[in-house]
Amino acid sequence: MPHPLLDKHRALLDQAQAAITRRTHWSPYAENPRNYGETALDDGEKAFEAYRDAQFYLDQPGVQGRCGEEISPYGLPLNVSYPSCSADALIAAAKAAMLPWVRAGIAARTGVCLEILARLNAGSAEMAYALMHTTGQSLAFAFLTGGPQAQGRGLEALAWAHQEMTQVPAQAEWQRNVSQRLEKRFMVAPQGVSLIIGSATQPTWNAYPALFASLSTGNPVIVKPHPTAVLPLAITVAVARQVLKESGFDANLVTLLVADPDGPAARDIALKPDIRLIDYAGAPDFGNWLIDNARQSRLFVETGGVNCVLVDSTYDYKALLKNLVLSLCLDSGQLRATPRVIFVSREGVQTPEGLISDEQFGRDLAFALGKFVEDPTRAVEVLGAIQSPATLARIQAARDLAEAIADILRDSEPLNHPQWPAARVHTPLLIRAASDQHNLFMEERFGPIAIVVSTANAAESLALAETTMREKGALNFLVHATRAHVQQLAEDVALRVGVSLSFNLTGAVLINQPAGFADFHASGANPAASCGMIDAAFVANRFYFSQVQQHYLPPSSIDWVVDL
Amino acid sequence: MPHPLLDKHRALLDQAQAAITRRTHWSPYAENPRNYGETALDDGEKAFEAYRDAQFYLDQPGVQGRCGEEISPYGLPLNVSYPSCSADALIAAAKAAMLPWVRAGIAARTGVCLEILARLNAGSAEMAYALMHTTGQSLAFAFLTGGPQAQGRGLEALAWAHQEMTQVPAQAEWQRNVSQRLEKRFMVAPQGVSLIIGSATQPTWNAYPALFASLSTGNPVIVKPHPTAVLPLAITVAVARQVLKESGFDANLVTLLVADPDGPAARDIALKPDIRLIDYAGAPDFGNWLIDNARQSRLFVETGGVNCVLVDSTYDYKALLKNLVLSLCLDSGQLRATPRVIFVSREGVQTPEGLISDEQFGRDLAFALGKFVEDPTRAVEVLGAIQSPATLARIQAARDLAEAIADILRDSEPLNHPQWPAARVHTPLLIRAASDQHNLFMEERFGPIAIVVSTANAAESLALAETTMREKGALNFLVHATRAHVQQLAEDVALRVGVSLSFNLTGAVLINQPAGFADFHASGANPAASCGMIDAAFVANRFYFSQVQQHYLPPSSIDWVVDL
Repeated sequence: MPHPLLDKHRALLDQAQAAITRRTHWSPYAENPRNYGETALDDGEKAFEAYRDAQFYLDQPGVQGRCGEEISPYGLPLNVSYPSCSADALIAAAKAAMLPWVRAGIAARTGVCLEILARLNAGSAEMAYALMHTTGQSLAFAFLTGGPQAQGRGLEALAWAHQEMTQVPAQAEWQRNVSQRLEKRFMVAPQGVSLIIGSATQPTWNAYPALFASLSTGNPVIVKPHPTAVLPLAITVAVARQVLKESGFDANLVTLLVADPDGPAARDIALKPDIRLIDYAGAPDFGNWLIDNARQSRLFVETGGVNCVLVDSTYDYKALLKNLVLSLCLDSGQLRATPRVIFVSREGVQTPEGLISDEQFGRDLAFALGKFVEDPTRAVEVLGAIQSPATLARIQAARDLAEAIADILRDSEPLNHPQWPAARVHTPLLIRAASDQHNLFMEERFGPIAIVVSTANAAESLALAETTMREKGALNFLVHATRAHVQQLAEDVALRVGVSLSFNLTGAVLINQPAGFADFHASGANPAASCGMIDAAFVANRFYFSQVQQHYLPPSSIDWVVDL
Repeated sequence: MPHPLLDKHRALLDQAQAAITRRTHWSPYAENPRNYGETALDDGEKAFEAYRDAQFYLDQPGVQGRCGEEISPYGLPLNVSYPSCSADALIAAAKAAMLPWVRAGIAARTGVCLEILARLNAGSAEMAYALMHTTGQSLAFAFLTGGPQAQGRGLEALAWAHQEMTQVPAQAEWQRNVSQRLEKRFMVAPQGVSLIIGSATQPTWNAYPALFASLSTGNPVIVKPHPTAVLPLAITVAVARQVLKESGFDANLVTLLVADPDGPAARDIALKPDIRLIDYAGAPDFGNWLIDNARQSRLFVETGGVNCVLVDSTYDYKALLKNLVLSLCLDSGQLRATPRVIFVSREGVQTPEGLISDEQFGRDLAFALGKFVEDPTRAVEVLGAIQSPATLARIQAARDLAEAIADILRDSEPLNHPQWPAARVHTPLLIRAASDQHNLFMEERFGPIAIVVSTANAAESLALAETTMREKGALNFLVHATRAHVQQLAEDVALRVGVSLSFNLTGAVLINQPAGFADFHASGANPAASCGMIDAAFVANRFYFSQVQQHYLPPSSIDWVVDL
């Protein structure tokens, strides 16, 4: 059952399917804005400006009013208003749209999804501005991760879904003996309505795998953006609806649910019996609430955790510091994969230049951080702005705690953004703690806050890292160690705890920039996430093989048929 | 990384992997006892007798005492005592055994699992007696479903697991540019300790997919049998431990947890944080308790539901009745896939001989049932014995309810077993209810109880079947309809509700005998089960790809290394 949109994008899908099983470097969508035309960024800015001070058009059912209060972390009020729809109306519309979408088959659904991705890709520049002025990311980072890399993650999920959906044939002839000869038909069937609860800091990067995994496997999708980051997902939904409509499908297969930011919208809809899949990336409190309450649904929850770094020994001390500083500064620590705690032993760090004491390491890291942020023009490209005032409050709380019971290696300070004077930009806070101060470091302090913990030796560092990551969750574990036995013990820790392990990262390879089609971003084996991303289970949990069987000819009816 | 046991069984694995994607008829293990040698059944009986009045040997840690109170539904006290071990000791032993099993790799684990299956297959006759005298199944049915077919399901899960585990390479070279060149290593890593809570009626058939899916993907497995059906799983665990030991692995990768039948053993262990996977097939109350409480774990829960039959029209009325009677009688309705409710419209059943009224259909079905059970020697081969006195109580309760508010089409009556005078054998109870008596038919009445419901027309039958299956869950939907529009509407119902649909079954193809390697037994899309069986998600949820990455040579260290 071919489909013109699948034919159109077949080469890309084939490459993507090869890439997920090869795990080498592959970027399906160009990562340099210049590849999108000389004026792409300017055009994108104009498109973004056109959304401002206006009503966002979406012809959805059950409109009850309009709302929207986004204010850019760079100080710009967006003043975009979105139609606010009844959750029940969106669910009813989703269910009504489902069966024809299911019956259309794998090729049609995959083709439509690939076309949606192509349109999203063409709009990457516009999306970059929408992301910048909702999440606070720098324009370059917003373009890269929220545009081509987010689209790449959508494609990655689509490739896994296509791989898993096509493992079973549409039809099989089952014959046990002469009288037991059955036709069995199999069809990919969805679990039901899929709800995606958007993230405030990485709305597209987090939502796209879920969107394309759910939609391509037949599930209608309701996207509930974070109230502070509606525009990127509203644009996404509008693009998806447009492609669906053009392809002859019901646009209500993808809808946007926005509501009064103070309302209980997400909690209300998450418990509705028809919601059978929920994807959420965000703070642990709501993630844990979902796990405790939304038991009618399959959950794909990523809440992050306390990603640990162990500094034992290095080939290149300066390169270690530079890499670590970049990771801590990237998007002001507002990535779930940002390192939070750095364990260093009082026996010191082995370097080619000799042993560096743990105290000296703390001073060196603080100094390197200071050097990096002293040029604001360069620094803001990496730091971006702080998405939420709550993050500023977390910085203050961590500072107060550190002043009371620990040390501040480098304080956080406001930074003047060269272009956006009202932007919320603050340098990272670097704290030093003792290994028994669990209340300080065994907690995710989301934002530009990192803690250096002095331990007795590498063994204590490993043990503390293991306990922290097991109890609080973690996506990754960065280990600087040249000693084989430390590496081996670190591998054991990573395996027991279920984190991705990186050794001795230097240069531009940052622990918090997972590579599409190569890296697995979460394991589901510790509290940081309830699922792996992106793998077979991430997509296979969203559908089942529906089966219809019948005798080719009811055996005992043969005589009667002949009698006619 | 080859392994001698995988080499030994490679051909079988290859066939199994081909079979899961082909879905045609394939029985990997011989289904006729004669294929196991002329004296196989006699030898099996002797082996079974040797277990009786004896201590079952298992060298497990944490032994606290011995227990075991199995009594055969055929009246034979087994008097087998099993070591009762502390759950914490078994979990600790499982965790200690895990890492070498993980590191051994896919080939070693798969090979060991295939060898366990081969040994279990060789012991099929002994297992048949163990199953007969714990579950009440007839010897022939116990041999078939609990022996070769259960082993086939284990192999089916193993084939899916092997397929999913081998999608990602062990190593990949990731290169973005000259300085960003990383080695990435991937390894299948388990979620943690896997708990299998055994079923009372189909202990091996239900447990083997979980056992081999969990074990082959690296998870240690603790098997907690139902207190009334310990022996089949104790034998299974002993075989697995023996093979593990012979292959150089820690036998505590598979352990048996038995405890005082009145104790809270299953609930206690199910909530322990180290238990990361739980498989359960059984009554809905405990299944729902697991879903509500064991939230630290991934759940694979099958509780059955109210499987519906719709009788609209037929090519062969007699064949329809015969097939239905066999399905209702098979294992005395003690299969989760047994039909529970039969909807027939007051407009009658269209047959080649003319219209049959709904009342006549009820009488005909009762008569056909009576004809079948009138020969006890033949009947007991299909009925087996009633596993639990609770099922007799359910028959009595249904009878009381029917006498009060509905009609009894054919009462259940004790049947003398020709060989086992003390056997608990009872013929099925057939009730007739009205379409508004939801409290009668919208409930799973596990055992030999079926209800014929008269409806206004085919549309009401379809609507009631849909509501029943959506709310109460169902594994399958059997529709007798020759009319195309009824078939089409039934397909819509099946798709919305997530049940396997069969049209016009006649002859020996029974709705409650799903075919291995062809049929999907559950969808996970309605309350009958939380997962599909056996599919990619069933295995992929049990592992993740653990990742370790490092620069081939830390780029900034090149100079320093050359300096040496």
